[in-house]
Amino acid sequence: MTVFDGSVLPARKTYLAGGRAGVRVPMREVPLTDGGVVVLYDTSGPYTDPEHVVDLERGLPRLREPWIAARRPGETQRGLARRGVITPEMEFVAIREGVEPEVVREEIAAGRAVLPAGRRHPETEPMIIGRRFLVKINANIGNSATTSSLEEEVDKMRWAIRWGADTVMDLSTGRRIHETREWILRNSPVPIGTVPIYQALEKVKGDPARLSWEVFRDTVVEQCEQGVDYMTVHPGVRLPYVPLTARRKTGIVSRGGSLMAAWCLAHHEENFIYTNFAELCEIFAEYDVTFSLGDGLRPGSIHDANDEAQFAELRTLGELTRIAWEHDCQVMVEGPGHVPMHKIEENVRLQQELCGEAPFYTLGPLTTDIAPGYDHITSAIGAAMIGWYGTAMLCYVTPKEHLGLPDKDDVKAGVIAYKIAAHAADLAKGHPGAQAWDDALSDARFEFRWEDQFNLALDPDTARAYHDETLPAAPAKTAHFCSMCGPHFCAMKITQDVRAYAEARGPAAEDAIAEGMREKSAEFADRGGRVYLPLDPA
Amino acid sequence: MTVFDGSVLPARKTYLAGGRAGVRVPMREVPLTDGGVVVLYDTSGPYTDPEHVVDLERGLPRLREPWIAARRPGETQRGLARRGVITPEMEFVAIREGVEPEVVREEIAAGRAVLPAGRRHPETEPMIIGRRFLVKINANIGNSATTSSLEEEVDKMRWAIRWGADTVMDLSTGRRIHETREWILRNSPVPIGTVPIYQALEKVKGDPARLSWEVFRDTVVEQCEQGVDYMTVHPGVRLPYVPLTARRKTGIVSRGGSLMAAWCLAHHEENFIYTNFAELCEIFAEYDVTFSLGDGLRPGSIHDANDEAQFAELRTLGELTRIAWEHDCQVMVEGPGHVPMHKIEENVRLQQELCGEAPFYTLGPLTTDIAPGYDHITSAIGAAMIGWYGTAMLCYVTPKEHLGLPDKDDVKAGVIAYKIAAHAADLAKGHPGAQAWDDALSDARFEFRWEDQFNLALDPDTARAYHDETLPAAPAKTAHFCSMCGPHFCAMKITQDVRAYAEARGPAAEDAIAEGMREKSAEFADRGGRVYLPLDPA
Repeated sequence: MTVFDGSVLPARKTYLAGGRAGVRVPMREVPLTDGGVVVLYDTSGPYTDPEHVVDLERGLPRLREPWIAARRPGETQRGLARRGVITPEMEFVAIREGVEPEVVREEIAAGRAVLPAGRRHPETEPMIIGRRFLVKINANIGNSATTSSLEEEVDKMRWAIRWGADTVMDLSTGRRIHETREWILRNSPVPIGTVPIYQALEKVKGDPARLSWEVFRDTVVEQCEQGVDYMTVHPGVRLPYVPLTARRKTGIVSRGGSLMAAWCLAHHEENFIYTNFAELCEIFAEYDVTFSLGDGLRPGSIHDANDEAQFAELRTLGELTRIAWEHDCQVMVEGPGHVPMHKIEENVRLQQELCGEAPFYTLGPLTTDIAPGYDHITSAIGAAMIGWYGTAMLCYVTPKEHLGLPDKDDVKAGVIAYKIAAHAADLAKGHPGAQAWDDALSDARFEFRWEDQFNLALDPDTARAYHDETLPAAPAKTAHFCSMCGPHFCAMKITQDVRAYAEARGPAAEDAIAEGMREKSAEFADRGGRVYLPLDPA
Repeated sequence: MTVFDGSVLPARKTYLAGGRAGVRVPMREVPLTDGGVVVLYDTSGPYTDPEHVVDLERGLPRLREPWIAARRPGETQRGLARRGVITPEMEFVAIREGVEPEVVREEIAAGRAVLPAGRRHPETEPMIIGRRFLVKINANIGNSATTSSLEEEVDKMRWAIRWGADTVMDLSTGRRIHETREWILRNSPVPIGTVPIYQALEKVKGDPARLSWEVFRDTVVEQCEQGVDYMTVHPGVRLPYVPLTARRKTGIVSRGGSLMAAWCLAHHEENFIYTNFAELCEIFAEYDVTFSLGDGLRPGSIHDANDEAQFAELRTLGELTRIAWEHDCQVMVEGPGHVPMHKIEENVRLQQELCGEAPFYTLGPLTTDIAPGYDHITSAIGAAMIGWYGTAMLCYVTPKEHLGLPDKDDVKAGVIAYKIAAHAADLAKGHPGAQAWDDALSDARFEFRWEDQFNLALDPDTARAYHDETLPAAPAKTAHFCSMCGPHFCAMKITQDVRAYAEARGPAAEDAIAEGMREKSAEFADRGGRVYLPLDPA
């Protein structure tokens, strides 16, 4: 395996134990050179545990097996939560998020959060998606035509969670869909999402007109049996909405949406997922698979944002959310896409209103269309903002968006950009504990603890490599300056003098400050009047 | 010269003529394969004009020489604007921005915009910075210690403007400061900014305690004479504010700010730029050099954002803005730095209030501290937002921020990230014409005009290279699908059917739509019921 080659993991795996047997929550522990330690959320699964022996044929340990065995089919996390039960999964995520288990139960019962954990995917480490919790990110993988092999996709999944993906969607469309998914599921510690219409289309030889409720339903059951945790379906692409896309600049850009629209046009019939939605809910409930109600009519360009087609579908998704809830299904609702900054907030407000506060799960949005090749950045801007406004999960966009299939570098670039967006949102929402990470890194920066600064970075490898490019020698890692300003110009050193003075004095009136400044002035001159420590010539 | 090596420039240089002689505004014209043309703002200067012969020894043509010669020293753009004069520079920027010259004059007269064009820098192509105009970006270059050569810095300047930098700051701190700056100025078509305290420090052998008003003033005059267009000075780092930084996490992180604080502490005296500010205004007015009032006490971490030290300095900068205006100096005010999303808007609101709506010029801000190595992204998020809220110019941050000195790749990465942020802000502000660029690219995308999509991209080279990685063959450039979905799954094709129907019908009532859908259904089945064009096996 090549997943971790060339990548230093400057942290220890640790586990926090819950109150009941088997609840053992993985965390990433970053030891600091000043003796402190920072404990971070960890999505990487057993792969980063030195005790774990990787065996892809065998798959991961079946952590949730006993919990699932104790449940009847059709008992969903939502159903149990509504009956007042705190499941082991809820306890797990409570520890993971640093909140009370009762908060987790309440949010799931109210439909404001989902805990996607399919009955047939005992390998998942439970996680929660909801606006009161840490903002999550999803990474898409999946082969297309003949461009990628099965093992490559498992490798991409492991790579994505290594850098922080909270869930992974397998969007494979080529041959060997079932087998690829099997390998991914058995080796994934994060929830796996799919878009079953893609596989259904393969079964009808790629002709959307030949799709049918029966083929679709059978595909959904097959995927539920296999262990998929959440599925994107497009019941909101209703027949009367299709013409609303006619005057758009970029029409329908969702693959699933375009297939359903094609079917509706070909048959002049209402969307078969919409007309059979109640039956679909029964299947989802049986396996506790979470709905991700897809926005098949999402805008594909700045021009088309927030238009009639988009919001007509959103109203339907709100209606369907309530039907799914009646079946005790867990539901999240998908959102765009391409939206200029001033139109982002309206998306969250409307979705929360129309869909009874079900978690929002958005793709970006991209805030401009002029930068193909950099859409991880155009969309990280929108993702951070929409996360702040209340979106619970952000689907990443890689630099290859609109241009090609992401390779491993692109997956990493997309995940890192979205971890930034999600964390910026956590900070802006005032999520308890979010700022501790920034503070620890800022302290390390101020105190010139370079190794700590690297190890606390989202991507320690890149931070270290960039530093080494200009100042490669080992002593530079403890130097009290860096290459930006050089030894002459270090702005941070002066502050250590100021701080020493202030700590001695405490908060003081103008006079006391003035007096202190005079003292400081003399002391400063005594020390040679320099604000930096000279560089050791060694 | 290596500036344009390996870089395709899929555009033509064109010039828009003004009403008076010599007003000839460069634009970038992108010809489209459908016969259309998109005309874009162009910062790249004569270097992208095939008629221009590059001769760095000789420097650029002295475009503004006759305009300057017709003016008395001390006549500033602001002074002239206030007297109702529309200068050739104002006419130039009006054409460049697509507005009436009177709008430009009014905004400059009111202090809401600056036109940084030093009397001794006739090579500049006039540009304007103000919230009613396109959001601008600045790229910092400059050598430090011994890491970069003079020619490398000129090369970086040309590279930065090639990708869209509107101004460039030369932050050199090592030896040969004067000579480096001379080369940059004589070869730069964009305004050049500096931080004169850096050179002043070199003159006192790096000891901040030995700085003085006289050394500083002489350095400012030297740089005015040389042709600098705007200068960052730190009069707002007042003696009583220094202790306010004592309880910060990262103290003072501005180099200029820390030098002034060091001087204040060493002498226990008020900041000499503050006490001599009126004299400084006289010098700036004589050369029409624009003030960039530096935020020496800006926060250096999420923790320190929007604190007492920062806002105390901002109030002083407001006071000084009015003094500078009395001398008819042009003024912009600098802003942070490191600010979580929910605290960004307050920065703009307070700055606009306290500084009489003088243009705001911010560094990012970074919206989280956890991603060293990716601070072009952490800060592009903040930059886009602060631009939307009204910031007029964004100072770029490169991936090397906090880690090392940017090389050419980093300069490009920083410029592109900031062009994205600035353009996203233009869109969100509803800047007239901003969306036309997005629309042109969206049209090209929808119509599978791949070459147009590349050529309209902020970075055509990267867009093309990413596409070629998956589908390198030339026919793929005209294929009606791409590698993301493959020929089976193209979402965009369906819309062309829908559109054809709707265009034939026009806006229609439910019945008419339903009827149309039935027709469409039959037609669709006739065509074989497929929604994509089959791939030509060639």
